[in-house]
Amino acid sequence: MKPEIDITKMGKLIITAAITGGIHGKKANPNIPEQPEEQAREAYECYNAGAAIVHLHVRDRQGVPTGDLRVYEETISKIKAKCNILTQVGNGIGEIIEPDGSVRNPSLEERMKLLEIEPKPDMITINAGSFDFGGTHIFPNPPDFNEKFVKRARERNIPVECECYDIGHLNNILTLAQKGLLNKPIHFSFVLGIIGGIPSTSKNMLHMVEEIPGGSSWQVITISRYQLPMTVQALCMGANIRTGLEDNIYYSKGVLASNAQMVERMVKIAREIGREVATPEEARKFFASAH
Amino acid sequence: MKPEIDITKMGKLIITAAITGGIHGKKANPNIPEQPEEQAREAYECYNAGAAIVHLHVRDRQGVPTGDLRVYEETISKIKAKCNILTQVGNGIGEIIEPDGSVRNPSLEERMKLLEIEPKPDMITINAGSFDFGGTHIFPNPPDFNEKFVKRARERNIPVECECYDIGHLNNILTLAQKGLLNKPIHFSFVLGIIGGIPSTSKNMLHMVEEIPGGSSWQVITISRYQLPMTVQALCMGANIRTGLEDNIYYSKGVLASNAQMVERMVKIAREIGREVATPEEARKFFASAH
Amino acid sequence: MKPEIDITKMGKLIITAAITGGIHGKKANPNIPEQPEEQAREAYECYNAGAAIVHLHVRDRQGVPTGDLRVYEETISKIKAKCNILTQVGNGIGEIIEPDGSVRNPSLEERMKLLEIEPKPDMITINAGSFDFGGTHIFPNPPDFNEKFVKRARERNIPVECECYDIGHLNNILTLAQKGLLNKPIHFSFVLGIIGGIPSTSKNMLHMVEEIPGGSSWQVITISRYQLPMTVQALCMGANIRTGLEDNIYYSKGVLASNAQMVERMVKIAREIGREVATPEEARKFFASAH
Amino acid sequence: MKPEIDITKMGKLIITAAITGGIHGKKANPNIPEQPEEQAREAYECYNAGAAIVHLHVRDRQGVPTGDLRVYEETISKIKAKCNILTQVGNGIGEIIEPDGSVRNPSLEERMKLLEIEPKPDMITINAGSFDFGGTHIFPNPPDFNEKFVKRARERNIPVECECYDIGHLNNILTLAQKGLLNKPIHFSFVLGIIGGIPSTSKNMLHMVEEIPGGSSWQVITISRYQLPMTVQALCMGANIRTGLEDNIYYSKGVLASNAQMVERMVKIAREIGREVATPEEARKFFASAH
Repeated sequence: MKPEIDITKMGKLIITAAITGGIHGKKANPNIPEQPEEQAREAYECYNAGAAIVHLHVRDRQGVPTGDLRVYEETISKIKAKCNILTQVGNGIGEIIEPDGSVRNPSLEERMKLLEIEPKPDMITINAGSFDFGGTHIFPNPPDFNEKFVKRARERNIPVECECYDIGHLNNILTLAQKGLLNKPIHFSFVLGIIGGIPSTSKNMLHMVEEIPGGSSWQVITISRYQLPMTVQALCMGANIRTGLEDNIYYSKGVLASNAQMVERMVKIAREIGREVATPEEARKFFASAH
Repeated sequence: MKPEIDITKMGKLIITAAITGGIHGKKANPNIPEQPEEQAREAYECYNAGAAIVHLHVRDRQGVPTGDLRVYEETISKIKAKCNILTQVGNGIGEIIEPDGSVRNPSLEERMKLLEIEPKPDMITINAGSFDFGGTHIFPNPPDFNEKFVKRARERNIPVECECYDIGHLNNILTLAQKGLLNKPIHFSFVLGIIGGIPSTSKNMLHMVEEIPGGSSWQVITISRYQLPMTVQALCMGANIRTGLEDNIYYSKGVLASNAQMVERMVKIAREIGREVATPEEARKFFASAH
Repeated sequence: MKPEIDITKMGKLIITAAITGGIHGKKANPNIPEQPEEQAREAYECYNAGAAIVHLHVRDRQGVPTGDLRVYEETISKIKAKCNILTQVGNGIGEIIEPDGSVRNPSLEERMKLLEIEPKPDMITINAGSFDFGGTHIFPNPPDFNEKFVKRARERNIPVECECYDIGHLNNILTLAQKGLLNKPIHFSFVLGIIGGIPSTSKNMLHMVEEIPGGSSWQVITISRYQLPMTVQALCMGANIRTGLEDNIYYSKGVLASNAQMVERMVKIAREIGREVATPEEARKFFASAH
Repeated sequence: MKPEIDITKMGKLIITAAITGGIHGKKANPNIPEQPEEQAREAYECYNAGAAIVHLHVRDRQGVPTGDLRVYEETISKIKAKCNILTQVGNGIGEIIEPDGSVRNPSLEERMKLLEIEPKPDMITINAGSFDFGGTHIFPNPPDFNEKFVKRARERNIPVECECYDIGHLNNILTLAQKGLLNKPIHFSFVLGIIGGIPSTSKNMLHMVEEIPGGSSWQVITISRYQLPMTVQALCMGANIRTGLEDNIYYSKGVLASNAQMVERMVKIAREIGREVATPEEARKFFASAH
């Protein structure tokens, strides 16, 4: 599709706050929430700042990424107790550190179980293909796993967001759609600038937008010093946006950020540009309108 | 060249305020300045708001676009008396209305004379080729005229900005550069969305950036409801920006703008994104550094 | 639209032979036909070689481009007497040399009259906008002229081919289509590499294809040493093709071509690639199928 | 870099014949050579037809893909005994069928050993990243493996060709180059249209060309009904080309091909277009000129 360039025709802006992530922890930035209570507090602050969705990864008591459903459940419950922000679970989980200190990636089975969380999350992300994540390890997301995953997501009526790390991944998603396994509109996240995936450039972003079906929603996920300019470009092209400490721990050069600050900045920019910010209720309706 | 996407590597942002233009007048928006005194006041307000350059067209006592050098001279003198904002004269002048009410376009000779203004402007723009401006009339900018024009501009040591309305125009400018008639870096304005020229889309903007030589400076000039999102996109790609009532008379849907307001908004967005705004002195040095 | 890349889905290839043109004459290449009899003979040879369309400009008795309807009529009659190749008249005519040796461009009125030729040509081309043709003179093709021209072409039931020299020109054609003045599918020629217009590059060609409506037919017109590789690229993307001495007087470096040779080469390449060549009858049906 | 469009500036065309591959066998097309003697005969026919390089995968006595060095060595020796065509070994090997009928992919260790073949091949290919090959299995090509592989290739003085299946893969190669592990110019193969990788479109091909460093050599590898039109497009943009039964078992719709026929067709097209075909000796010099 073509990106929108008429400011009067862009939809309301859905802001996702990715408040924690599966890699950095408090050593990198003490504002990264780890425990359920903290995550709920942080989600609530982002909600107050204007975020409609909180993107979640969870940690165990030691602050280590975990796929433990009970921690997800506790975190989601605590968030829901505070406000109606949408909860979105990333199905990559993150790197798991074993009791003996060894690092391993979660198995496909562990990731599959995320769909059984109670209360169920409002949204879940899939990763559209396998690749050398960060140049350090193969992040396995084979088509048959994704197929099984989106089938079960649909059974549980959980909307899916599709994270694409390269051009071929878009095609993997279109294949799922052609098989009738994805509702429309499809929700794309273009993940730009992760080593092993497509680099973060304006040209690559535009190329990806041009390859997705008309009517799709999209946003970019990109990191560090590319995060802000690329995200605002996308916002000016009609995209939704994602921000938060998972993607960038700095507010400006050398200055650590907080999640709410990053959301506030996006709200300010959106307002200057003339895009209205969607409430969680509006975002919920948008995702429920899929067919 | 490739647009910049690393926020830490973008240069200071040079903001041009196009405060009046050659088409709309006070009927469209009473904040459009017409008389020299008004233009100077408006330029000063834009200067205070953060503009480094004021782009000028002038009007006669009846508010009609004119190529009368004395009016340019009076306007520039009055601006210079107030502040050190750079003055930039657009060499298209605008449509001239004769005493009998008939409309005509200025002749190439009238336009050529703009180079003899005293005090000389700090910058002058050329239009890189002929085309059906607005779909209503041929705007003649033949290569031999432009060649003569930039030669004389160089003799008078006036930096040139090159307004390109389509892909072929970029090539016309490169031809002038290959003949050794333009200093480097070259300063490009991509004029997007004028009927007869290239439409205002992200793809067209990116295509134009990719075709210019590395090290060039660039900005987009685009109008009405495309002006804001396209300009902010460009800002996020390392471009300079132009704003003002020549390009868009509205601040938001149905709300008339003032020039200073439009500059202020750009300064606010630039600061949120992390780009520092260039002072007139810094802009002056940048344009003087050409070789 | 997206160019086709599946060889089994490309339509039959319509080959246009531009046998003479409005600039070069026998001094450049003695195989360029000038007089009606010669043109008919050359058209017939191109027909035998596989061309479905002959693109025509005509010359007076001295070999000078002329807009004289009687010469067009004589030429078209003589071609029709020999074979059923489609005749296509270029509405730019070419540079006219006056009896006193001075060169002038034909007036819009002279060009308008081309629509009154009897027998009428099977097709006529328009030029989609004004620009600095060759960098030497403004080639005027204002929107109101084109509008009048296509209206009259439609009254006479003559299919129109739209020559676009830059991105903005595509938009001019879409405007005519939106006004209901052009049948669908629209027939585009992208003219690449004329100074003043868009340069001849793969990127520019692709960009133009992407901007036209789905279902349109298209071809590239480009010259000299770019003609062959760009034309074959287009052929591999599902385009029709144009060749002939108007576009390139050489068969290979330093070797003068004949029109029939150039058509034969295209037929050979098309067959190797697996595209069938359309007969004039098939081309006629295709153009008549417009609605 | 920009693709070349001036036919007079394109280098000699290096044609690679991929005569067998690691998937299809004689059931698909009896002309696919399997045993060393057959492969040598086929390589010799391709050499006679105009190929400069033969791209090799080998089979065991049952016609099953194997990583057995002795079979490679026998095959290469037999080819070298017949002619001086360059031998190129693909480091993916292909799917290995175990004695019990189970299918497995070769290990990284087995693939690493390909560098120890004696006589050594004239060239070897790497696969630039891991992905879901064909949508059916993860094809592992992690950066640390590729790093080790190209280091050893350099020790043995074997030029490397880099097969890239998506945009991110190009970046993986540039990273190897920045570490000083690859000679320049870099030799790229853009593999288009494998499920899991970037689809086969003109836009994707152009995008990839634009991302590689100036001076690189490149070709496309693509399959079935896209193979011919995409390859000829690339040829017209200055690329080298690859053809052969590994990529397409058909000569035209429903008609099985032979390797030599496919090479001959490319030679014919190249000659029509005006590109001279490189001899093996010229190709050898080109690859040896790296620094």
